[in-house]
Amino acid sequence: MSVEEHKKEAPDIVQCMVITVSDTRTKETDKSGAYISDALQEDNHVVKDHMIVIDDKLKIKAAVRHGMERNDVDAILINGGTGVAARDVTIESVTPLFDKGLPGFGEIFRMLSYTEDIGSAAILSRAEAGVAANTIIFAMPGSSGAVKLAMNKLIIPEIQHLVREVRKDL
Amino acid sequence: MSVEEHKKEAPDIVQCMVITVSDTRTKETDKSGAYISDALQEDNHVVKDHMIVIDDKLKIKAAVRHGMERNDVDAILINGGTGVAARDVTIESVTPLFDKGLPGFGEIFRMLSYTEDIGSAAILSRAEAGVAANTIIFAMPGSSGAVKLAMNKLIIPEIQHLVREVRKDL
Amino acid sequence: MSVEEHKKEAPDIVQCMVITVSDTRTKETDKSGAYISDALQEDNHVVKDHMIVIDDKLKIKAAVRHGMERNDVDAILINGGTGVAARDVTIESVTPLFDKGLPGFGEIFRMLSYTEDIGSAAILSRAEAGVAANTIIFAMPGSSGAVKLAMNKLIIPEIQHLVREVRKDL
Amino acid sequence: MSVEEHKKEAPDIVQCMVITVSDTRTKETDKSGAYISDALQEDNHVVKDHMIVIDDKLKIKAAVRHGMERNDVDAILINGGTGVAARDVTIESVTPLFDKGLPGFGEIFRMLSYTEDIGSAAILSRAEAGVAANTIIFAMPGSSGAVKLAMNKLIIPEIQHLVREVRKDL
Amino acid sequence: MSVEEHKKEAPDIVQCMVITVSDTRTKETDKSGAYISDALQEDNHVVKDHMIVIDDKLKIKAAVRHGMERNDVDAILINGGTGVAARDVTIESVTPLFDKGLPGFGEIFRMLSYTEDIGSAAILSRAEAGVAANTIIFAMPGSSGAVKLAMNKLIIPEIQHLVREVRKDL
Amino acid sequence: MSVEEHKKEAPDIVQCMVITVSDTRTKETDKSGAYISDALQEDNHVVKDHMIVIDDKLKIKAAVRHGMERNDVDAILINGGTGVAARDVTIESVTPLFDKGLPGFGEIFRMLSYTEDIGSAAILSRAEAGVAANTIIFAMPGSSGAVKLAMNKLIIPEIQHLVREVRKDL
Repeated sequence: MSVEEHKKEAPDIVQCMVITVSDTRTKETDKSGAYISDALQEDNHVVKDHMIVIDDKLKIKAAVRHGMERNDVDAILINGGTGVAARDVTIESVTPLFDKGLPGFGEIFRMLSYTEDIGSAAILSRAEAGVAANTIIFAMPGSSGAVKLAMNKLIIPEIQHLVREVRKDL
Repeated sequence: MSVEEHKKEAPDIVQCMVITVSDTRTKETDKSGAYISDALQEDNHVVKDHMIVIDDKLKIKAAVRHGMERNDVDAILINGGTGVAARDVTIESVTPLFDKGLPGFGEIFRMLSYTEDIGSAAILSRAEAGVAANTIIFAMPGSSGAVKLAMNKLIIPEIQHLVREVRKDL
Repeated sequence: MSVEEHKKEAPDIVQCMVITVSDTRTKETDKSGAYISDALQEDNHVVKDHMIVIDDKLKIKAAVRHGMERNDVDAILINGGTGVAARDVTIESVTPLFDKGLPGFGEIFRMLSYTEDIGSAAILSRAEAGVAANTIIFAMPGSSGAVKLAMNKLIIPEIQHLVREVRKDL
Repeated sequence: MSVEEHKKEAPDIVQCMVITVSDTRTKETDKSGAYISDALQEDNHVVKDHMIVIDDKLKIKAAVRHGMERNDVDAILINGGTGVAARDVTIESVTPLFDKGLPGFGEIFRMLSYTEDIGSAAILSRAEAGVAANTIIFAMPGSSGAVKLAMNKLIIPEIQHLVREVRKDL
Repeated sequence: MSVEEHKKEAPDIVQCMVITVSDTRTKETDKSGAYISDALQEDNHVVKDHMIVIDDKLKIKAAVRHGMERNDVDAILINGGTGVAARDVTIESVTPLFDKGLPGFGEIFRMLSYTEDIGSAAILSRAEAGVAANTIIFAMPGSSGAVKLAMNKLIIPEIQHLVREVRKDL
Repeated sequence: MSVEEHKKEAPDIVQCMVITVSDTRTKETDKSGAYISDALQEDNHVVKDHMIVIDDKLKIKAAVRHGMERNDVDAILINGGTGVAARDVTIESVTPLFDKGLPGFGEIFRMLSYTEDIGSAAILSRAEAGVAANTIIFAMPGSSGAVKLAMNKLIIPEIQHLVREVRKDL
């Protein structure tokens, strides 16, 4: 059975991979990665893999492509590396992989960051989402406020819906 | 007289083409297309053509290009095919035709969808607008809620303004 | 010392270049340029240069590139030429120069224009920001309402923060 | 009958539009345009239109789009404006319209220019071809040597073949 | 061991996947696929997989991405679907996956097609190569002349060299 | 006087900057850089600057942008970093800066590499040229054979011609 066929049959439980992009966090100190993982599991989804990748374009791309190809991964949730500093290369690494962009995720995330979290500093965030190889990919900032906002207001409420939509015409 | 010269002289009444992108709707069942058409006419605009096109990139592109070239069409209003499923190809078909993108249409449409209509499901919409061959092009979702929101809050209030701006330096 | 080394050492006072894109405004009549300049100086920043450039792609690009290369310029604030008319070419001139886009600036600017300033006409604005050669670049509309909104709500509150972020890993 | 249907049925005689891009040539002095026209007719093709357009992006795009939409035009042959000077904008105007690029035309044209015509000066030419709206589009330099080379070695020998290929799956 | 680590250690024998893109060929009638496979094996390389995929963007992309992720695949050799007809979508499917393009493969292939094989009809070929996820990808036409030319003159002589270069800094 | 005005007036002597991209070469061991420099001077051009930059995107971009902005630099000749290995990032750094690409330089360079120098290994080279801020930019491989070929067959014969063309409509 191909990746495509497996994904079509997936149940309502979403199988996820969590990627933390950071030069400094370890499994012990990766609070944002742990938060994402816990939030998914509390909502009855499964976290198939959780890895920490350094701020390096080739490493980030390799990790995301690996998740895209796994039969048991429906969605990839990345945190970290979405800012404007030179070492922030998550967005540059991930968006060229997309078959389709989902501009609304980044837009509404920043709107909510502006109104409910950090005010005008929301303009520094480059969060994005898209679909690649029938896998949903989210890239959100690594700060704990950003992760909570993205998970609770957008990702948890819509992740099943998105997976179902992406698969429906396969 | 060239297309360009004709368009420059256009009056305040906007001449429109309505395109419904759907594999299932017919003229009889195309409620969203009918809503768009009625809303334009109630605002004194003219609907020169209303067609239904299947979810196929070449067909969608051909229909939009035809509208761009007609002397009697100032704006093209497309509904349907803007989601994230594999068969949703309206955005992929239409945005490469744009001379200029109008990012604000999609952004504010999704913001209003979030706050006034469907909440977080707004991140699934990929609505877009742009200008091509001096013609305004809107691509909105095909659901009746989306069409009402886009027409009443954004398109009807700004369509004349947009046509006038696009023509003013020709 | 290279441009890069100089910029890394820059203090909290942001050194700015103001560019007004207009075929009609002069130094005397450029109220929006003057507003930007005054707002920066009241916040203790320095305006190293203020120039008026006509609506011409090559001229706009040359002015922005010149600012990008100057050791004493950390941020470039452009106003005018961001609309949808044929002569509005600021966005087309500036965005290809970006190393990184900052989509949140344009998005939140348009959201605020919608809710606090001009309503649905916000969809006509194509304001954008980005980073090029470690210089922050903002392109906002030339109207006085737009300039006040962009400066007071987004640029003045975040300009130091942005400059610091852009430099921190150099 | 749609443009698409008409084109599918087209016979072996290719219906052409010739566009000369120049600020200085007139119908009387446009030797390169006349050469193209004559060469097509000697090969039994039909020249439906021959126009001179100034070096202006909007005018060039409008002319090409007009040809793309005409039922009686299978191929558009453009000459002039393909160099590297600032006013040479034919390539910038035309390539964004392509559905598919045909990189081999420009490459082999430049290879032949190098070996048979102008030697190393061939690197200054940016000739390109592509397909848009099922219409073949060629953009060649305006010099008489370039036009002869492109017509005799590449376009006349392949124009029917190309039209047939482009239509075969419609 | 990651895909990356495996590939770094690969010996001089290149592990290949052959993909034939065709709506009509079967394993029995796929002469061009068989030729590629035989040529690789005669040169002591290994063909890990040989599949036939229909002319469909999603299917082609899925097959190529699968090869990119396999630890035992260093190079993917695709034939078919590189022409200009509407159903020819191999190039559109494959080039967006590239991390780096290799423009010389297509260029020199067409130059040799022109001088040694089919003359001016070489302009109809859109053959391309590139690197994605440290895997070399070639897309060549499906005709038997094209396959022989590409394999004997370019791919067999350079495939080991390319694999070694791509891996050397990992 | 602006950069633009200075460049317009430039005499037939071309003012050049030479950039060697390498992690290992020093001024003493940079034979290819020295060859380029000597070839330019023997042809009566001036080498205003010769620098060695490591294989790092930000450093390469900064060096090229600096040359683009200098009044006394008409052309930038880069060697090294044009291959397909992971650390080869010259092409990725330089091509996004171009206002106009010059595809013929890379194409004819590779054709000559194939026929006169290294045969099929020519497909590994990604040499490119373009124009940015009215400055000609060449990126050629760092090997001594490649540099000799590019300089003697293409760059020295055409560098004055290119500078004159780029300036003529300013």
